[in-house]
Amino acid sequence: MTEIPKTHPRYLSLVAREKVAAGVAKGFTSTQGLIAQGRGEAFDYLIGERTTPSAAEATRAAAAMLLHSRRPAISVNGNVAALMAEEMVALAKALNAPLEVNLFHRSEERVGRIADLLRFLGAEHVLGERPDAIVPGLDHARAKATSGGIYDADVVLIPLEDGDRCEALLAMGKKTIAIDLNPLSRTAVKATISIVDNVTRALPNLIAAIEELKRSSEGEIEEILASYDNRAALRMSLEEIKSTLSRG
Amino acid sequence: MTEIPKTHPRYLSLVAREKVAAGVAKGFTSTQGLIAQGRGEAFDYLIGERTTPSAAEATRAAAAMLLHSRRPAISVNGNVAALMAEEMVALAKALNAPLEVNLFHRSEERVGRIADLLRFLGAEHVLGERPDAIVPGLDHARAKATSGGIYDADVVLIPLEDGDRCEALLAMGKKTIAIDLNPLSRTAVKATISIVDNVTRALPNLIAAIEELKRSSEGEIEEILASYDNRAALRMSLEEIKSTLSRG
Repeated sequence: MTEIPKTHPRYLSLVAREKVAAGVAKGFTSTQGLIAQGRGEAFDYLIGERTTPSAAEATRAAAAMLLHSRRPAISVNGNVAALMAEEMVALAKALNAPLEVNLFHRSEERVGRIADLLRFLGAEHVLGERPDAIVPGLDHARAKATSGGIYDADVVLIPLEDGDRCEALLAMGKKTIAIDLNPLSRTAVKATISIVDNVTRALPNLIAAIEELKRSSEGEIEEILASYDNRAALRMSLEEIKSTLSRG
Repeated sequence: MTEIPKTHPRYLSLVAREKVAAGVAKGFTSTQGLIAQGRGEAFDYLIGERTTPSAAEATRAAAAMLLHSRRPAISVNGNVAALMAEEMVALAKALNAPLEVNLFHRSEERVGRIADLLRFLGAEHVLGERPDAIVPGLDHARAKATSGGIYDADVVLIPLEDGDRCEALLAMGKKTIAIDLNPLSRTAVKATISIVDNVTRALPNLIAAIEELKRSSEGEIEEILASYDNRAALRMSLEEIKSTLSRG
């Protein structure tokens, strides 16, 4: 990795970039994943590279939905593995939920490497290497899913997910929680809850919110879910970007 | 290259992405270049993946400035080489100007490969392999320039350029013409003329504008330059993005 001075005004963004580039070298991330990282950087810049109030609210609602779920599942792709593998393992433990490796540009080798990484970091329930089910409406390579994981989950956390797959999971009657920096993306627009934030900030926040809400009653959790309005949160994200543009 | 159906709504964007990924495989583009392509995609999406009226006006002013210049030079980096090498050669011919390979993450091997590509495509005057001068104010690897090229040009076309280098060229008294999709970037904010457009659209438009203005008088060209207001054009670009966000 290139050494980046901690005093650099965009230190965290540059470290994340290096991690994704290192993820390509280690075989977790595809070259397409680097381009996706760049898209994310642009939107992150536009929301001010910070967790906005609307993202914080969406994260809290996501924590409530995951705790309220009977069968949550967590999708892991190459960029998430390169950036946040430890946090994904911690999240799976906090929820006692499976991690399912789920790649847009699937290769069995990359699936295996990411699954090995997650197990090496202590994950107990890693799926995706032996998919046994098909998500209807997707082409073959992208439709693969696993029973006991994404396939029969009621709530799926999909950080950095493609719009087609988000919609296909919704069409199966599942709830989806997206983490996506583009508030106009199909994924963000369609997801049940859309956290418009960088995964490097959103996942630690999500884990902290889950730990906090574990001490809440079922009624309090239902109250958080009932009062959350995803469309309003997305509108607020767009307003955040407009205000960055107005300062320009 | 992955086959992309021509009917795909984002065909051109996906083809550009594949070209940059292929540029990495061919040794023209760095992994950082892929991330930069992603950032560009995000901003292009926000301006509607089309040449906006303000970008068209900036392109026309850029053509006038290049024709009015005594010693224009054209900077070529890895992404530009991967995406638009033929157009860069055509532009150099239209202006009778040198192309100078100028990489942010310089490696002699990449400089050589890009220079070879440009010569293979018919460029007659390719610089950058034997830099003999230093742009003041930049660290060593990024300061390298060539006499007869960028170093003593009066106007430099800098597609996809870093903000530090744009500023260093301006500090030498040169005029700079940036092609940069982020209207808030330091490059776009500082450049003499900022074309907020995708290079894949801007370069063909720029070549066409040069051919058209070659038939104009010196007075007409000076009139175009005198009436162009870069700050107003940048403000219009920001308004274009805001209107995309308002449709969301």
